[in-house]
Amino acid sequence: MSEHFQLIKKDAETGARRGRLKTLHGAIETPIFMPVGTQATVKGLTPRQIKEDVGAQIILGNTYHLNLRPGSELIRDAGGLHKFMSWDGPILTDSGGFQAFSLAKLSKLTEEGVAFQSHLDGSKVFLGPREVMTIQANLGSDIAMVIDECPPYPCKKDDCVKAVERTTRWAKACKEIATDNGFLGSGHHVFAIAQGSEFEDLRRRSAEELAELDFPGYAIGGVSVGEPEPEMLKQVRATAPFLPEDKPRYTMGLGTPPQMLKMIAAGVDMFDCVLPSRVARNGAFFTPDGMKNIRNSRFATDLKPLVVGMENYTCRNFTRAYLRHLTMAKEMLSCTLLTLHNLHFYLNLMEQARARIEAGDFSRWSASWIERYEAGEKGEG
Amino acid sequence: MSEHFQLIKKDAETGARRGRLKTLHGAIETPIFMPVGTQATVKGLTPRQIKEDVGAQIILGNTYHLNLRPGSELIRDAGGLHKFMSWDGPILTDSGGFQAFSLAKLSKLTEEGVAFQSHLDGSKVFLGPREVMTIQANLGSDIAMVIDECPPYPCKKDDCVKAVERTTRWAKACKEIATDNGFLGSGHHVFAIAQGSEFEDLRRRSAEELAELDFPGYAIGGVSVGEPEPEMLKQVRATAPFLPEDKPRYTMGLGTPPQMLKMIAAGVDMFDCVLPSRVARNGAFFTPDGMKNIRNSRFATDLKPLVVGMENYTCRNFTRAYLRHLTMAKEMLSCTLLTLHNLHFYLNLMEQARARIEAGDFSRWSASWIERYEAGEKGEG
Ligand SMILES: [Zn+2]
Ligand SMILES: [Zn+2]
Repeated sequence: MSEHFQLIKKDAETGARRGRLKTLHGAIETPIFMPVGTQATVKGLTPRQIKEDVGAQIILGNTYHLNLRPGSELIRDAGGLHKFMSWDGPILTDSGGFQAFSLAKLSKLTEEGVAFQSHLDGSKVFLGPREVMTIQANLGSDIAMVIDECPPYPCKKDDCVKAVERTTRWAKACKEIATDNGFLGSGHHVFAIAQGSEFEDLRRRSAEELAELDFPGYAIGGVSVGEPEPEMLKQVRATAPFLPEDKPRYTMGLGTPPQMLKMIAAGVDMFDCVLPSRVARNGAFFTPDGMKNIRNSRFATDLKPLVVGMENYTCRNFTRAYLRHLTMAKEMLSCTLLTLHNLHFYLNLMEQARARIEAGDFSRWSASWIERYEAGEKGEG
Repeated sequence: MSEHFQLIKKDAETGARRGRLKTLHGAIETPIFMPVGTQATVKGLTPRQIKEDVGAQIILGNTYHLNLRPGSELIRDAGGLHKFMSWDGPILTDSGGFQAFSLAKLSKLTEEGVAFQSHLDGSKVFLGPREVMTIQANLGSDIAMVIDECPPYPCKKDDCVKAVERTTRWAKACKEIATDNGFLGSGHHVFAIAQGSEFEDLRRRSAEELAELDFPGYAIGGVSVGEPEPEMLKQVRATAPFLPEDKPRYTMGLGTPPQMLKMIAAGVDMFDCVLPSRVARNGAFFTPDGMKNIRNSRFATDLKPLVVGMENYTCRNFTRAYLRHLTMAKEMLSCTLLTLHNLHFYLNLMEQARARIEAGDFSRWSASWIERYEAGEKGEG
């Protein structure tokens, strides 16, 4: 049993869990969604808007980006990422390893880590267990992620075995470093990342090997890398049962609202995704009847809020007609107000899910929520 | 004497005035700066930020833009511009005539008004006295501006005489329309605009002809159209004395902080300018030691706020190092936070000016403020 994560309630019909994760910057009620603040900012929003309007409990920062610009030493000297960006709630940071592959030039993986060239200026950078743990300590992350090897989808089983084995070795090294430098002892958390691609035996092996290392929390990695949704759910279900029940579980980079509800039912507690903020910058907004786009001409004279009765700054103060005007006029405020709405929508969905798990009718509520959402999406034609 | 404008104090040494202008959406303490909200938004800021963080008392909307997109009828149907953009303070709108010349394609001026093609879709639009007063009534402006003819700088005296005469005829027509349709009677204000270019006798003639028409307020037009600053001040000083003392005075589209202080000394009460928000989008910020640019590498590790001790959201919460990082990373939040700071700087300068006029030492304070600001600008090299 771990004292930093409390399982408040387990759903009787699904794997859904209602939990509370303590961090150095306060407790997080799970299931929870974490807005993404890649470059020390959740795009377009002030920290006050993120806290008061979106209702975020925890945000995510990206080690890959922050390490390249402005550099983790500057952030350390400025008092850590919380003080640097003026966000006093919990922060989770990824290790940067995954983005070193997906964004950088000429990346090369060895047993020591990932060598690559910065996408900004071509300078040579290396990220191994010591580097990612040092950078995340400089940032002062409440939850640091280990560096892992995420195999592509699909991949050969032989390659996947090697990725699983290396992922365990790296996790062990990261935990040792975070123990030795006092990061873990001072109350920061480190989460390991289980891999295994589509191979159920490797999923189980990875989860069990990492579980033995007794991390404060676990991510289910290698999902949302191009596989179809049923495959993604299959992989999560092949992993979750072999992770310690008394530790939080996190799927990285997920997802749509229905996907998050399905993941919650599979026993996942934490989510992050750029989707709600990225689509906002293109005029899209979330509703209980699916995602819509404010550019649609039928909104030109629509004096209703984005979602009737929704309690966020955007819906309380602005009409669809106004938001469409801002979007068509390419006004920055459009991004801000739609991002605010979308992130609040995600946080509000998590709040509803938590209440339904507590009330004991999560399964029924979730099914009908998804049904209405997907019917609305289809209705758009 | 007019009941809607109260002259609280006149400076003994300069033409500076401390006043209070009542509108349907509350009173404005003058001298005052009005942030520009061209397309029904002060770029990058929410109405809450404009009110609480910037401290704006009144904002400006642009009739030319709003008439083309989204159209004044839509805004009227949405309950007026205040409700449409969720700003419940006073709003001043220009007539659109000036921008019909400067922004539109193929604009043509006749005695009836300005015919032009929209810069958005090429559609043909006409703005005369009836049109500009109807549009501004649709918007529900607290202060509507008449349509005027602004001669270029420099211009021939003959042409300027014609512009002054037409400006008076149009002002008369606008006042009649605003009287007949109940706009003035219901407590909205209409301001006339004095012209005359560089000709002191025409400046006086224009001011006196318009003063006779007894408008609720007056703008000094045709300044900031390319003339050097001493010429601009000369024109303001050639106009102000011939405008009614008990009515507010407004110079449109001005200016830098020192220019505003000089205009206040010349008897001007109201200002608007895109400068503080426009330069913010390029990384520039205002300080008592002049305008600086956050992109400068000396700010890379600077952990001080933009202006030490300044009480705005940006300065209370963020360092120069952080704001430089946001700017270099092309993050939207940079625009928001710098715009917020710059507009607050302008509003704070007006607050200081009001206090100094009340305290009786405006002239000395203003001279030393300008001296420090200009020394700082020169120091930048
Ligand atoms: Zn712990
Ligand atoms: Zn009045």
